[in-house]
Amino acid sequence: MTLRVGVIGTGMIGQDHIRRMSTVLSGVRVAAVTDVDADTARRVGAGAGATVHATGAELIADPGVDAVVVCSWGPTHEEYVLASIAAGKPVFCEKPLATTQQACLRIVEAEVAHGSRLVQVGYMRRYDQAYRALKAVLDSGTIGAPLFMHCAHRNPSVPGHYEKEMAITDTSVHEIDMVRWMFGEEIAAARVLVPRRSRHGGDLQDPLLLILEMSGGAIVDVEISVNIRYGYDIRGEIVGEDGTAALGELSPVTVRRSGQVSGPVPADWRERFLRAYDVEFQEWIDSIASGSGPVGPSAWDGYAAAVVSDAGVQALHSGERVTVSLADKPKLYAEEVAA
Amino acid sequence: MTLRVGVIGTGMIGQDHIRRMSTVLSGVRVAAVTDVDADTARRVGAGAGATVHATGAELIADPGVDAVVVCSWGPTHEEYVLASIAAGKPVFCEKPLATTQQACLRIVEAEVAHGSRLVQVGYMRRYDQAYRALKAVLDSGTIGAPLFMHCAHRNPSVPGHYEKEMAITDTSVHEIDMVRWMFGEEIAAARVLVPRRSRHGGDLQDPLLLILEMSGGAIVDVEISVNIRYGYDIRGEIVGEDGTAALGELSPVTVRRSGQVSGPVPADWRERFLRAYDVEFQEWIDSIASGSGPVGPSAWDGYAAAVVSDAGVQALHSGERVTVSLADKPKLYAEEVAA
Amino acid sequence: MTLRVGVIGTGMIGQDHIRRMSTVLSGVRVAAVTDVDADTARRVGAGAGATVHATGAELIADPGVDAVVVCSWGPTHEEYVLASIAAGKPVFCEKPLATTQQACLRIVEAEVAHGSRLVQVGYMRRYDQAYRALKAVLDSGTIGAPLFMHCAHRNPSVPGHYEKEMAITDTSVHEIDMVRWMFGEEIAAARVLVPRRSRHGGDLQDPLLLILEMSGGAIVDVEISVNIRYGYDIRGEIVGEDGTAALGELSPVTVRRSGQVSGPVPADWRERFLRAYDVEFQEWIDSIASGSGPVGPSAWDGYAAAVVSDAGVQALHSGERVTVSLADKPKLYAEEVAA
Amino acid sequence: MTLRVGVIGTGMIGQDHIRRMSTVLSGVRVAAVTDVDADTARRVGAGAGATVHATGAELIADPGVDAVVVCSWGPTHEEYVLASIAAGKPVFCEKPLATTQQACLRIVEAEVAHGSRLVQVGYMRRYDQAYRALKAVLDSGTIGAPLFMHCAHRNPSVPGHYEKEMAITDTSVHEIDMVRWMFGEEIAAARVLVPRRSRHGGDLQDPLLLILEMSGGAIVDVEISVNIRYGYDIRGEIVGEDGTAALGELSPVTVRRSGQVSGPVPADWRERFLRAYDVEFQEWIDSIASGSGPVGPSAWDGYAAAVVSDAGVQALHSGERVTVSLADKPKLYAEEVAA
Repeated sequence: MTLRVGVIGTGMIGQDHIRRMSTVLSGVRVAAVTDVDADTARRVGAGAGATVHATGAELIADPGVDAVVVCSWGPTHEEYVLASIAAGKPVFCEKPLATTQQACLRIVEAEVAHGSRLVQVGYMRRYDQAYRALKAVLDSGTIGAPLFMHCAHRNPSVPGHYEKEMAITDTSVHEIDMVRWMFGEEIAAARVLVPRRSRHGGDLQDPLLLILEMSGGAIVDVEISVNIRYGYDIRGEIVGEDGTAALGELSPVTVRRSGQVSGPVPADWRERFLRAYDVEFQEWIDSIASGSGPVGPSAWDGYAAAVVSDAGVQALHSGERVTVSLADKPKLYAEEVAA
Repeated sequence: MTLRVGVIGTGMIGQDHIRRMSTVLSGVRVAAVTDVDADTARRVGAGAGATVHATGAELIADPGVDAVVVCSWGPTHEEYVLASIAAGKPVFCEKPLATTQQACLRIVEAEVAHGSRLVQVGYMRRYDQAYRALKAVLDSGTIGAPLFMHCAHRNPSVPGHYEKEMAITDTSVHEIDMVRWMFGEEIAAARVLVPRRSRHGGDLQDPLLLILEMSGGAIVDVEISVNIRYGYDIRGEIVGEDGTAALGELSPVTVRRSGQVSGPVPADWRERFLRAYDVEFQEWIDSIASGSGPVGPSAWDGYAAAVVSDAGVQALHSGERVTVSLADKPKLYAEEVAA
Repeated sequence: MTLRVGVIGTGMIGQDHIRRMSTVLSGVRVAAVTDVDADTARRVGAGAGATVHATGAELIADPGVDAVVVCSWGPTHEEYVLASIAAGKPVFCEKPLATTQQACLRIVEAEVAHGSRLVQVGYMRRYDQAYRALKAVLDSGTIGAPLFMHCAHRNPSVPGHYEKEMAITDTSVHEIDMVRWMFGEEIAAARVLVPRRSRHGGDLQDPLLLILEMSGGAIVDVEISVNIRYGYDIRGEIVGEDGTAALGELSPVTVRRSGQVSGPVPADWRERFLRAYDVEFQEWIDSIASGSGPVGPSAWDGYAAAVVSDAGVQALHSGERVTVSLADKPKLYAEEVAA
Repeated sequence: MTLRVGVIGTGMIGQDHIRRMSTVLSGVRVAAVTDVDADTARRVGAGAGATVHATGAELIADPGVDAVVVCSWGPTHEEYVLASIAAGKPVFCEKPLATTQQACLRIVEAEVAHGSRLVQVGYMRRYDQAYRALKAVLDSGTIGAPLFMHCAHRNPSVPGHYEKEMAITDTSVHEIDMVRWMFGEEIAAARVLVPRRSRHGGDLQDPLLLILEMSGGAIVDVEISVNIRYGYDIRGEIVGEDGTAALGELSPVTVRRSGQVSGPVPADWRERFLRAYDVEFQEWIDSIASGSGPVGPSAWDGYAAAVVSDAGVQALHSGERVTVSLADKPKLYAEEVAA
């Protein structure tokens, strides 16, 4: 019972997922690919032994495709996800679900009309061993009700086309999804504090301090530093009424040399979250193969992340606290994060 | 050349400093004591072999007293510090320097009129080994210019008379002094964010998130949790352009037992800062004995802490960002923290 | 190109590897199974959709089996590995390769006669992320030539049938293989020191201190504690001329509660080495599928481990230092660990 | 009540203790000094405001000297300690107590004849915060009866006159005293294992592995590396029946930079044990001043260390296990470490 997956978008991320499904994971086969760049699609498709389609629509319609993975350019996500829903096929969409909250809401509505979950969004942190251990501690009640979460999202550098809003929409959106899942609550408001700029960021406003208020009243602060140079470093500590719990240090080796005791910091997000991506896809594959359907980040989660992102960008521009206003949550997602 | 110290106030803190000067430190002798509670003064004075005075004024005037330590009730600090300055005697004043910024400014003006430093204020964190190591890293330039400092000040519990403003004026005032010293900058503005309350705090608004803006543009966030139960925990991490530096973990012993690897957390501030108090007083004694005069936290530092505290309290009440407005800094303190 | 594997032995370990190959790894299918307990074989075979054979010989002869995994009772390993070599099929044999060094040598000779590597032995530590990071540091030269390695192998408890020799042959044999690989050297001598017994070990001589001398002159000490109660803990530190390198602490989460800062210790070897087993099998599968043949622990490694084990047992019985004496190393293994 | 101390030997160690007693500690004054180098004695004495004596005998006889500190050349220790006992004066003798076990035994006998303790030997590790925390865990019973202690004593380098026996007599003698105190047991036997030499040690046999058997049956292994380059590193882990306890990591600051998370390692023993020396002397001073007499390392401890050292040197030369044979322990030391 091998799941036959069609991949829309064979750029860097798409190729990485094709490699993952072809050579790392169990119970899956890349059956079809397509890309706006037909040459790349042909080359990648040949390497994977997959049928090459001219368009996403054709790929989705292919009876040899059981489920769809969308890794194309963000503005195209809505179209492919809606088409997958229309075809009744499970679809894994890399973040963002869509580029506007309105588009996300259209997907939510289409899925609700379909009547069962088909969509999963690619927020991989929920699959990271350290975040899962952190959530297990929180859920155990051993540190009491959460009051704060202190986070840091540090990138060694960003590409030249990175714009200041991307600190919210592209970088900290991972924390936005993570804390909704971690706390089992929606985000109620956002604000952004702006310190002096790093000399490494050029004209970019880097770093930022994003402050989120959870619906239950806890405050989450997220340092977003995208030119920190020293490595890729993801930190998180929950402060509860009775104690705290933090992501552990995960250095595989400790070296003593030249007056220092030290361990390595991951070089980039690939190194840090390599396993999380594997687990994310394997669990998705297993959920489709078992017939239970996707249980990971939902269209609602994708929509909520978009709304909070928008609020964050507005807060960045205005310097003010911005309230997050979500649509009514459909029953389909009732067992998901509660507002 | 033993320094003869007179101690005003023989309550808990005063007795601890008398013990310190009598049995731990070098080059010092407690020559005189006084307290509003004459019985306590007599008992403590007898134990220390010290003259007992009826009033602070009398003690300050005693020719057998070379220097004064003020540990009395806060509202009396101004009077005793001014009297010491008038007598031309060095005076170590436990925090706060005085209970209003106006009173602090009167002390500053009196000292400026005297023409040289006589006053030191009891901010002991500047003498802590870990904070000093942190400052050495920052000053070395190895992590670049500072952009953030993330702090936590966690108390296991507070006494019944603790009121919500004390989270700023009594608890986080240590961070207020520390960051001015750490960054070599004044604080430009304050704001306070308020999450849901801990059930351990009763009616108290606990915890709080104090946000300070440094004059150089860095942002300092301070989690203030005064009912955290698990221990006394002081955390601090500076984020620079090229890296970060944090207070180390200082567990003297690591135990593996019952499925856990663990180390102890200090039970209270006495345990955590015991050595810092010793070093603080020894350096003060040595500075007086050597004739150089005090080099630790100055009357200006005490004044600045009071102004920032006031701004913090105003921010707590208003929910707004409050600008810190300091008087012009006298030349006497020119080598101190620069605005 | 799915590798079709036949599994001999469907006990606990065999079932775990069948689960791994069926639901975790890529490019592999369990095509056939057999077990001395025919009922278990039928049940497990049905679950995996695999042909059930009456005997190991029949399974090895099955043309639908590309490669063999041997997880049966130790005394049967020699027969099945030799039969696989005779059939020219790659064979992965769980440790031990065989129960005597003479039997191991017969396998080495059979493989040499065959002319290329077919055999891999199941020493999974070489696939552990932390050990690999440690070896990368050592191989980089950054800590200089190795002088010591300090190891600990701690089990929370052992089953009732565990006998004292098993501390060497079953438990520390993992360190025996690991240090040969880590140092790229053979072991020259062994001795065993015996402290007082743990009350948890009953009549068992537990713990032990195994001392190994490497051919290059470094000394390896291995604490073997098999009733340590608190968890499963594997430690290793290499002391070089210029520094040291140690397996890192890998707690995914750090909790502060009740006066302690703590992290979890793995409960057992499954938890600690789960990923290492996955990587071990995936790399083995890939090496067979690619036609390069196995590159993991070889028949020679299995033989060397058996010889060192025997020396260790003799050292345990005699209390004396025992020299390790290996046969001449065939050229087939020339690129392996050098004597 | 200031204790007036006479210091015999004003070399590097003596000067450091004079500095300590003059400028760091409470309740003490350096009243007299002497040295074989009269010029140094005069210079140091003048700096400390102390009487300068021509000989140790004269200093000990000085009625202005309440207690004696012996920091002179090792071969002179016996004479000065015996003379102090004869004068009925407390004497703190830097290690070693004397250069032969016979001389140590003569001191023990003289003290026994005197009838109460006068002698304390300068083993400062018993005063180190981390070792004390480790002993508190062991004594609490929480990790059960001790089975092993794994130690490392690492020096960045040693002076040119360092000879191979000094690894035992000068370096690991600190561990020899420490484990007797830690376990409350005598050492029953010693052996030394010799790995390949570090290239940094020249002709020196460096490093060594010293193995000690405690009278209760626990085994202590001590890595002695005296050219490790990277810093001064003292490690210790006790393995008990129910868990383990280890000296903690004590880095005051944690830096993230250039792909590494790191903390400093102490540069030398002065940095690592600075506070232990202070505490050692303050407690000694207080014990003399209070009239209770010394409670730190006794003449018996000095004697036992000498006997174990001799056994260790013999083990180094012979390669064999050497039994430690102590004289009968006088009742005077009954509450000390029990055989």
